[in-house]
Amino acid sequence: MSHLEQIVESIKPVHQEFIDLASRHLDQLTKPPGSLGKLEDIARQMAGITGEVMPEFEKKAVIVMAGDHGVCEEGVSAFPAEVTPQMVMNFLNGGAAVNVLARHAGADVFCVDIGVNADLEHPDLVARKVRKGTRNMAREAAMTHEESLQAIIEGVEVVDDYVSKGYCLFATGDMGIGNTTASAAILCALTGLDAGFAVGRGTGIDDAKWLHKQAVVKKALEVNAPNAEDALDVLAKVGGLEIAGLVGVILGAAKNRCPVVVDGFISSAAALVASRLAPLSASYMLASHLSHEQGHGRMLEAIGLGAMLQMDMRLGEGTGAVLCFNLVDAAGKIMKEMATFDSAGVSRG
Amino acid sequence: MSHLEQIVESIKPVHQEFIDLASRHLDQLTKPPGSLGKLEDIARQMAGITGEVMPEFEKKAVIVMAGDHGVCEEGVSAFPAEVTPQMVMNFLNGGAAVNVLARHAGADVFCVDIGVNADLEHPDLVARKVRKGTRNMAREAAMTHEESLQAIIEGVEVVDDYVSKGYCLFATGDMGIGNTTASAAILCALTGLDAGFAVGRGTGIDDAKWLHKQAVVKKALEVNAPNAEDALDVLAKVGGLEIAGLVGVILGAAKNRCPVVVDGFISSAAALVASRLAPLSASYMLASHLSHEQGHGRMLEAIGLGAMLQMDMRLGEGTGAVLCFNLVDAAGKIMKEMATFDSAGVSRG
Repeated sequence: MSHLEQIVESIKPVHQEFIDLASRHLDQLTKPPGSLGKLEDIARQMAGITGEVMPEFEKKAVIVMAGDHGVCEEGVSAFPAEVTPQMVMNFLNGGAAVNVLARHAGADVFCVDIGVNADLEHPDLVARKVRKGTRNMAREAAMTHEESLQAIIEGVEVVDDYVSKGYCLFATGDMGIGNTTASAAILCALTGLDAGFAVGRGTGIDDAKWLHKQAVVKKALEVNAPNAEDALDVLAKVGGLEIAGLVGVILGAAKNRCPVVVDGFISSAAALVASRLAPLSASYMLASHLSHEQGHGRMLEAIGLGAMLQMDMRLGEGTGAVLCFNLVDAAGKIMKEMATFDSAGVSRG
Repeated sequence: MSHLEQIVESIKPVHQEFIDLASRHLDQLTKPPGSLGKLEDIARQMAGITGEVMPEFEKKAVIVMAGDHGVCEEGVSAFPAEVTPQMVMNFLNGGAAVNVLARHAGADVFCVDIGVNADLEHPDLVARKVRKGTRNMAREAAMTHEESLQAIIEGVEVVDDYVSKGYCLFATGDMGIGNTTASAAILCALTGLDAGFAVGRGTGIDDAKWLHKQAVVKKALEVNAPNAEDALDVLAKVGGLEIAGLVGVILGAAKNRCPVVVDGFISSAAALVASRLAPLSASYMLASHLSHEQGHGRMLEAIGLGAMLQMDMRLGEGTGAVLCFNLVDAAGKIMKEMATFDSAGVSRG
């Protein structure tokens, strides 16, 4: 059995009996059944994942995977590629949006260099570089199968490491100039969606650049002819190192029976790949927000997830996912602290 | 000048110069301009409301207005009317969903008896009863103009009171069996929407009861012929005491230059009335969640608001609004704590 097959095999179904126990408890609480909507869904899912009716998630981590993209040569982004390493340093110094929102949520940010095209040094950097950026997918495969596999395995190992340190709730984050282009290509390759619907404006490009970006994605698909039935082939040919790393984070969370909150367009591309490689992993995912990026809704649909927040965000980094930690905590408190019809003396419908 | 006209007159426009200052600061932060979406909108709005670029909202209050509805005689709800006073006691004892979520958000819940059809005693109850429930709007006007005016003024005074105690961020909450019926009637009366689109399933009624509820709303509109150009007439004839009280809470918040987070369908009916009575009040409102209740989206559209959460909630009480306090705090921290392009040495696009 290959290393990836072993990881996939180690992902087990969630505990249906704990989902049922959570449902029964929710229906005793002083509210019309189901009236807390997705908060109730979260409570049930957390019970199913953990095998506890009222789990607590004390240590929370946002794993930000950073990598560069050879396709930036084609001029697909509003920002220069040098911003990837600059933003990695910003994460490590605590000044980026995800740092602010993680502190607000009581979570820790861990930044992983999985493929930044620069030599980075910082005591807090998680150094897991597979290679310095991908190749230009408009000309050749972005990665070999081996490179993308290695990036997945690095992601799994990173999660294993934090689980051993007591972290039990994860969020995915990304940094990589050019990575909405790769994510759109993954969406097209795996679902057959046309680039016109899958490609968005990323960090903020104008109409001309947007049409060019669509053409680049189409060219990458033509040049590489990724196999829609083989998610690893798609990931290697038109994906990215940070996207592969996030596939590993998601599979690693599922393998460790930890919930993982999926951020926006790039993280969802990773989630889509993960759900194709290991369908059981989808039960461990929560979709956080519906991004402003065109194509994100179709991506979530393809995985079978529904978003909680609709904030028109399009930053990535894990910013949307980490905002949802508060909702996971809220669902837990609903389970623990609400009165029942009997205890409060409230009549049922 | 009438008391209501005085209140309306006392609501001033938000400070455009502070919105501009907030925008300028947001565009210095290490992110593509606008990429934090509604978090940036909130930051700008809070600056405009308070006249501070980085306001803090230390003391937060959820004002839950409770009242009964004569229209319950028509059999429009899945729950008996006795649940209104029972739930008021649940709020006062801290066991309801809104109590749990308010504690989670660091906010206090204040429960106001503005029109419960029972004699209630509790040291923490805010006793502002205008009358014991409304009349049955399917037969006659739910309230006189004087009664609905009085309920509005009570709401304004409640907010004045908490502002004097240091509260500076408010959320609206409601309790009143039968109040989705009244809210749907307000929506129809003020926008011309057909009852088939405005009436939802409230706490959870079946198809037969849903069609009946639509017929009851249509009958109430025929019997009372509320004047669409006169929001007070609409509120009095087909509204509710807690809805009128919430109109007062919203106008009171605007008058005191405090932001007010609007909960779901019932609170939004109050917000729609408030926006018609005092158009400037809309700048002080934030829509929280898009409720599962049919018609809520059209209601928010009519006010010109967009929701942040999409949680399929339909409980009321202020549960959706209080979940958004966390997002208001998050927006404030983004303003205060994020690095700038210059301070972090990150290149611009």
